This record gives sequence, C-alpha cells and structure tokens, in this order.
Amino acid sequence: MRNDESNLGEFDLIARLAARLRTPTGAGVVGIGDDCAAIPHGGGVQLLTCDVAVAGRHFLPGRTPMADVGWKVATACVSDVCACGGKPGYALISLGVPPGQQPEALETLYDGVGEAGESYGFQVLGGNVSGASELVIDVFMLGEAPRFIPRGGARPGHLIAVSGTLGDAAAGLRAFRDGDDSAGSRALIRRHLRPRARVERVPLLQAVASAAIDISDGLDSELTHLAGQSGACLAIEGARVPMSRALRDFARRHGEDPLQLALGSGEEFELLFTLPPDRRAELEGADVTVIGEVREGAGVLLDGRPIVPRGWNHLRAP
Amino acid sequence: MRNDESNLGEFDLIARLAARLRTPTGAGVVGIGDDCAAIPHGGGVQLLTCDVAVAGRHFLPGRTPMADVGWKVATACVSDVCACGGKPGYALISLGVPPGQQPEALETLYDGVGEAGESYGFQVLGGNVSGASELVIDVFMLGEAPRFIPRGGARPGHLIAVSGTLGDAAAGLRAFRDGDDSAGSRALIRRHLRPRARVERVPLLQAVASAAIDISDGLDSELTHLAGQSGACLAIEGARVPMSRALRDFARRHGEDPLQLALGSGEEFELLFTLPPDRRAELEGADVTVIGEVREGAGVLLDGRPIVPRGWNHLRAP
Repeated sequence: MRNDESNLGEFDLIARLAARLRTPTGAGVVGIGDDCAAIPHGGGVQLLTCDVAVAGRHFLPGRTPMADVGWKVATACVSDVCACGGKPGYALISLGVPPGQQPEALETLYDGVGEAGESYGFQVLGGNVSGASELVIDVFMLGEAPRFIPRGGARPGHLIAVSGTLGDAAAGLRAFRDGDDSAGSRALIRRHLRPRARVERVPLLQAVASAAIDISDGLDSELTHLAGQSGACLAIEGARVPMSRALRDFARRHGEDPLQLALGSGEEFELLFTLPPDRRAELEGADVTVIGEVREGAGVLLDGRPIVPRGWNHLRAP
Repeated sequence: MRNDESNLGEFDLIARLAARLRTPTGAGVVGIGDDCAAIPHGGGVQLLTCDVAVAGRHFLPGRTPMADVGWKVATACVSDVCACGGKPGYALISLGVPPGQQPEALETLYDGVGEAGESYGFQVLGGNVSGASELVIDVFMLGEAPRFIPRGGARPGHLIAVSGTLGDAAAGLRAFRDGDDSAGSRALIRRHLRPRARVERVPLLQAVASAAIDISDGLDSELTHLAGQSGACLAIEGARVPMSRALRDFARRHGEDPLQLALGSGEEFELLFTLPPDRRAELEGADVTVIGEVREGAGVLLDGRPIVPRGWNHLRAP
C-alpha cells in the first residue's frame, strides 16, 4: 500500500481492526498490543506470535537465499517471544505458493526454518499449504515464559538499555540491494540476511526488565511504543547508542550519519528494555548498553529533542 | 498452481516439505499428518492448527461477503480442532493486505471471525498485518483436548460414521458462482458461505472415536487419509451416505448424481470418524450416520469398488 494520504498506515489499520475484537477475558490473558499475546500456563504464561515474509516485500525473490528467508521469518517470531521474556517451543508454517514455484526452493526455505529451530530450540510441527499469487510464508510460534514482560512497564527513573549494536541490518540491506560485496559490507549483509534473536539475553530480561520490546521496526519506532504503552517519556542520548565499527565505516563511505541508520534500522532483533536503576549492576558483562532513562511525560527525546519515528510501515510498498 | 504434470500436487509438496523437518521429539508431541499438531498439556493435549483464505482461491473478492470469509476461515480451524477431539481456545489472525484495500472490508472480515469466536468459544488475541498483492487471511488456532484423536486409529471391524449431511457445500458453491438465487438453492448457498464446525459432536468423538478427520476436502479424500494413516481398508455404501433433500433436488435440477456431489464436496466440515462396533448405541440421536466399516487391507471401497479421491488440490488454480 503506497503510503499516501488516501491510505491507512499499518498502525492505524491495526488500531481499527483491534477495535473490532472483544477485549480478551480471563486472568493473565494478554491480547493485541505487545510483541506476543499470552495466556496463563502453569505458574507462568504461554506466548503466541506470528510473523510473515512476503516475496518482494520482505525479501528479494531470486536474490535473497531461500534458507535465509526461512531463518529470518522464524527469527522474527523467536525475537517476539524473547521480548516478552520467553523461550520458543513450537512453530507452524503456513505457505502461500505461487504458480510455477520450484519445490526445491521451498525445501531450502524449510531448511532455513529448521536451522533456526535447531539453533533457538523450537520444533516445527506442521502447517498449511495453499496456492497464492506470490510466495507468502507465515510462521506461527508458541513459547513460554515464567512471567510476561510487557511493553507498558517502564516507570520514571528506570534506565533504558539495549542489547548489541544497532544499524547494521539497515546498512546490510542497502549493501545487499546495491550488490556491494566489499569486505567492509560483508558483515553488514550477513546481519541483514541472518539476524539473530537474542535468546541468550532472556534470563537477564527475566531478572531485571520492567518493560521490553524487540527492535524489528527501528529504535525510534520501538521507543515510541514503549513510551506510549508505559505512559512515560523515554529520553535517550545519541552518543550512547551502540554502533559497530562496520556501520560507522559504511556511513563514512556513504557520507551519512551512522546514528540515523541506527535509529531507523528495522529487523535488528536486538532487545530494548527498561530496568529499575538499582538493578544496573546486573547488566555488567552482558553486551548491553544503557542509552537513557525514563521520565515523567510522554513521547521520545533524543538529546533533549522530541523525535518522530519513521520506523517501518509494513503496508508500504518495498 | 495449475494441476499439470510439470507441477506438484498439494500432497506431494507437503510430503517433500515434511521430509525436510526433523521428527518432533517429546512424549505426546504430534507433528505433520493430522488435522492438528499436538503437544502435551496437563493431563491432555494442546492442539495447534492454521488455515488460510486467499482472495480468488477460497472466496470471490467483491462477491463473497467479507464477514462470511472471516467466519469460514475461522470455522476451518475450529473444525480441525474438533476432528482431534478438542475445543478451540485462542486465535491469531495474520493479514496480507493488497494496495488500495478498503479498511471497512477488513473490519467486516474481523467481525466475521469475532462472530465465529463468540459462537464456538474462542478468543482472538492479535496477529499481524503486512502488505501483499492479494488479500490473504491466515488464522492460527490453539485448542485443547482431554485426549488426541488421530487419523490413524481405525481398526478392522470398526464402524465408519459421519455427522450431518454431505454435498450441500459443493452444490452451494456452484449455485453461488452461478448467481442461482432460487428458493431451493438458498439453504445450499448458506451452507457454502456459513458452514458450521461440529463442536457439539466433540464429546461423542471423545467418548467413542478410534480415528477422526473433518471433511474439508471431500469425503473420498478424507476416507483415503484415514485408510492410509490407519493402514486399513475403509469400505462404505453409497446408499448410506447422508444427503439433504435440498441437495437431491439440486442434483435432479442439474441432471447430476447427488452421491458424486456428496463424495467430492469440500469445506463441508462434517466429522468423519471410526468407532468400535460395541459403541454403536452411543450414536443414537446424535445426527450421525454409519456409512460403512473398516476392513483388513488398504484404500477405500465404495459399494465394493475402489475409488480414487478427487478431493481438493489447494495448489490448483480456482
């Protein structure tokens, strides 16, 4: 959907559709508005999420390796589960198959999902196959967590932290599209094609996080979600945003501001979370960076100035 | 996918893809090959399934009412859950939204899923929205059952039973496509647009069924699945296949054999199951008909002659 004024954006559409659904009932049931839905399960919760890869929108047919397509859509689901503090358990794959599709490519796609399953620890239990005009891969995932970590738990005074480094995926996508196979871009491209969900950070989140979200649509967009759902202001410092040397080099080569790449980079799958300041010592040695703090108010501040997220509109044409 | 010889059929493709996945591990975990996947849950099982509606393939864009589209794809999931002996609990909806899609139509679609939720007793907890070339509605459902009823449990000597009447949905689809709005066709069209999953038969299945499947692809096709997965021969009598008066009238008007319509009718959502003969008395008053018996051997016999299922190839162009 072209992002012109006559059409709805993704979040407007979600808001309209969410309004048609009944509010979930039942203690501990979480509906629309977080990375996963949740239902009570033993002493904890079961987490439900889904993510899709559509040919020409989420990958370049004929160019993006099919194993990477499978890996990445599975990683997006796993990342949602991580953001809620859980570990993935089981997945279903629903395939839309276009006319003339080579079955070998679909086998390779499945291999990519299978590799992800082995790496992250989930099992693919089945799914569905249908005809379609273009290749569509919908993955549904079930996970579980001892407690549900929501987007809405950030409180004034809490610290804002992020795992890893940001911006590589956006730069990698650009390099991949441009056919830039230079040594400096190879690691970036790898991060675009084979991003990794931060399953190893989940115990830390369970220990300290008051709110969390995964960075799938860009740091600016995810900060805005956390701020909105927590009813607070999230203030970060640009100089603290963690960026790789590869990203800084890429930005220099292209005459761009690496911070802008880091703020808007989608499908990063790093974890953004908040924590009470007295838990800060527990971040030690965890490849996690404190980038700001939660304040009274609303919205997102970058070096004291409000920012408007560009993020990623999933209805926008690629 | 055109069903020509250069292309794979749906079941061939599923077999190839299934071969790429690791066999699920863990006691009580059920993977590909049944109406639902299953994982252990308390003393019973949790059931996972998904179904999709693609514009132009599963419904006629601009003609099929959108609330009916939502109802039906949800019903297909509920029916899978029923076939495994379960009741539905929670659903996610993944939408592929084409350029220029009117949001009102999507709201109506959601209303249809919501109506189904109210009627069958499941809650929609969220989902996903993405751009796509055509409207795609993927529904994922989670249910639970005290025990898993498989396709592979039919044993020689068991009776073959089916709920309700068969063939109405196929006739209704034809009447709907032809714009046949005659009084005689209206009930058939209604069954095509608003089929009902047989949730009320689940307690009976839990009590007596040795194997079960829902009739979503045609009786002939479903019998073949039960026979194959049970390693037995399923023998039915044509004269016993339950058919409505409306179907017989429709067939007479069109100079067709109603039994052929009943055998090949997809999206019927009646339940086909087998049971030990000493449990037959429990079918009394349940709107269930015994249509044959399980024998040693393989394949499906209709009045003593082998039948080859036509069923529904979901990769075939509509």
